[in-house]
Amino acid sequence: MVSESIFREISVKTDSKILLLVLDGVGGLPQDGETEMEKARTPNLDDLASRSICGLTDAIGYGITPGSGPSHLALFGYDPVEYIIGRGVLEALGIGLTQKDMAARGNFATMDKRGIIVDRRAGRISTEKNSELCGLLGKNIEKIKGVKVIIRPGKEHRFVVVFRGEGLNGPVSDADPEKNGDKAKPARALSSKAKKTEDVANSFIQKAGEVLKNQHPANAVLLRGISRVPRIPSMGELFKLTPAAIATYPMYRGLARLVGMEILPTGETIEDELNTLKENFGRYDFFYLHIKKTDSAGEDGNWEKKVKAIEEVDRFIPEILALKFDVIVITSDHSTPCLLKSHSWHPNPFLLHSKFIRIDEAKRFTERECSRGGLGRFPAVNAMPLMLANGLKLTKFGA
Amino acid sequence: MVSESIFREISVKTDSKILLLVLDGVGGLPQDGETEMEKARTPNLDDLASRSICGLTDAIGYGITPGSGPSHLALFGYDPVEYIIGRGVLEALGIGLTQKDMAARGNFATMDKRGIIVDRRAGRISTEKNSELCGLLGKNIEKIKGVKVIIRPGKEHRFVVVFRGEGLNGPVSDADPEKNGDKAKPARALSSKAKKTEDVANSFIQKAGEVLKNQHPANAVLLRGISRVPRIPSMGELFKLTPAAIATYPMYRGLARLVGMEILPTGETIEDELNTLKENFGRYDFFYLHIKKTDSAGEDGNWEKKVKAIEEVDRFIPEILALKFDVIVITSDHSTPCLLKSHSWHPNPFLLHSKFIRIDEAKRFTERECSRGGLGRFPAVNAMPLMLANGLKLTKFGA
Repeated sequence: MVSESIFREISVKTDSKILLLVLDGVGGLPQDGETEMEKARTPNLDDLASRSICGLTDAIGYGITPGSGPSHLALFGYDPVEYIIGRGVLEALGIGLTQKDMAARGNFATMDKRGIIVDRRAGRISTEKNSELCGLLGKNIEKIKGVKVIIRPGKEHRFVVVFRGEGLNGPVSDADPEKNGDKAKPARALSSKAKKTEDVANSFIQKAGEVLKNQHPANAVLLRGISRVPRIPSMGELFKLTPAAIATYPMYRGLARLVGMEILPTGETIEDELNTLKENFGRYDFFYLHIKKTDSAGEDGNWEKKVKAIEEVDRFIPEILALKFDVIVITSDHSTPCLLKSHSWHPNPFLLHSKFIRIDEAKRFTERECSRGGLGRFPAVNAMPLMLANGLKLTKFGA
Repeated sequence: MVSESIFREISVKTDSKILLLVLDGVGGLPQDGETEMEKARTPNLDDLASRSICGLTDAIGYGITPGSGPSHLALFGYDPVEYIIGRGVLEALGIGLTQKDMAARGNFATMDKRGIIVDRRAGRISTEKNSELCGLLGKNIEKIKGVKVIIRPGKEHRFVVVFRGEGLNGPVSDADPEKNGDKAKPARALSSKAKKTEDVANSFIQKAGEVLKNQHPANAVLLRGISRVPRIPSMGELFKLTPAAIATYPMYRGLARLVGMEILPTGETIEDELNTLKENFGRYDFFYLHIKKTDSAGEDGNWEKKVKAIEEVDRFIPEILALKFDVIVITSDHSTPCLLKSHSWHPNPFLLHSKFIRIDEAKRFTERECSRGGLGRFPAVNAMPLMLANGLKLTKFGA
């Protein structure tokens, strides 16, 4: 891979504008012969694909299912293996905490009497219920072994917990059985200096269980991505961009903030996000626009909902094109096939539109059409150099 | 990437003969739906493509526009990022200077009264005028701060200057605004030990301006690739080849000399180059044949001229095939689309012909047909192992 230092050298500031539109988890798997994308009616995306160059990306590598952290880092032009990111920290950043502390992403979950996690998402409790439970936890668990505990609700079953105190270090494994029907799992220090973090995390889980014991289905908590904020050079430093992020979920705002994007306040719907894009179009040269619906539907295995989400995105494409970006990339961070109800290792459809492309034979924005695309199959970390090049934001390497 | 040391181990000397035909900058971009290559009538190249295996190469990486130095090094089997080459040194070598000294590639340019470079190529003055001006500079600038100054003309607006003396070190930035309409830019030492080189280079530029002040349009000079010759193992050492280079431009002869090729004297035309190839066919096992016209036309944005250059190459293909090489590769170092009038980041068409290939579906030698080729899209540095393997010049790796 071309190292970051090269981009510091060859990138230049220009007026051209780039859009990176991420349809989270949009890639799927065929059921009855067609994938979610193939099933969806997407005249606008298909028309754009037929005037673009397409391909397929791997966030990490063949067969590797990426988390949202590394897969987004790759799309932002960062080596995802070099910058492994604790997901907890990202959500924490996204909801406005500092860059110190150890942080983790939490789920409210349902545990049965034998200690088996029967629902890792506690039936997707409402965001309101979540807030109430986080308040309850915050009131009852203020400090553990001298370490301050800060809890903030996320959406539905998700929350963030921050441990603030001396002597906290990683790496620590996730306290999450990862599938329903397995026994709850404690966090585990992965090096001797991480012992205190392990103690605090497991003590938090145990105390939370006591506080929540009458709150079925949300009677337990899981913790993932227990980590510190990694140091990472900004997109401004590396690529000379003035980037902005539009995303409805804290996690993705956190990721964007981590690489130095400005986080634009926006609403809950795709329309809200698009309005934010229009209002801010003149002020930035790079926009990361994140659509969550495609992934949520895939995680739920809700085929109809995923197809509808893709069709909804399609309806907004003409408005996006009307903004006249110099470069548009539409892709995904990872696939989330309804068949698997989870992130998967399948490569992501990738579409690039600019004045400087060799238009290929891909006629639809689907996994299989993109696999015939002129960009071939490539690591997602190359998306950023491609966008920059097409925006004429990279000078020649070597004389 | 497979490291060089592996080739030292597994390469073997055989009688098979390899031709690497480089059509400089041949790849383009569509205008009215077709690229320069698609527009050109190339029955011979197309027939060969339909009996070959094709693909697309990247010299450095997705989105990275390579200079001629790194892009050729990649084709010659060297990691282009490891061996970043100052272009000046290469031209200097190509015209017969030693491997010591700091050297730079110069352009005669046109500067207006406000110090703006209005034409970085001084209207492409004739090679004769260039010789005259280099003579003038040489007579007037013999030494700067105790450093000997040696000037040699290249083609059209290009020249080479060598600084020979004590205490000269790199790295030094280019003294070149890189586009017309910007102010002339001095060289800048990129480390403290490069200060003397910076002084000498800027002093040279200033003195040259005085000498040339009445020579409009060639009233200024720009310097690029100010550097020392890097140490690089030869193709003989690494690949056990006895290689020869046929190129009309000093820059490419310099590059070939750098990796240990014999430089064959030749004329100005493609026909001259082909005659040189025929005359020397028996004496070498690897030929690098460089065609410049395709790139020059692209740099000028001259669509008709580029299409004609491609068609001219096509007419010589039967004569090349008649020589019965064991392995023929036809490709490019980088793309130079007329649309961009410059090197670009787009991948290069690649065609490999030998007895030991899986012929693919590519029916023409064009960017888009090659993108459907059996070799896929791959780093250009793999061209050399492919040529060697098809020449049965590589033994098994590992027992």
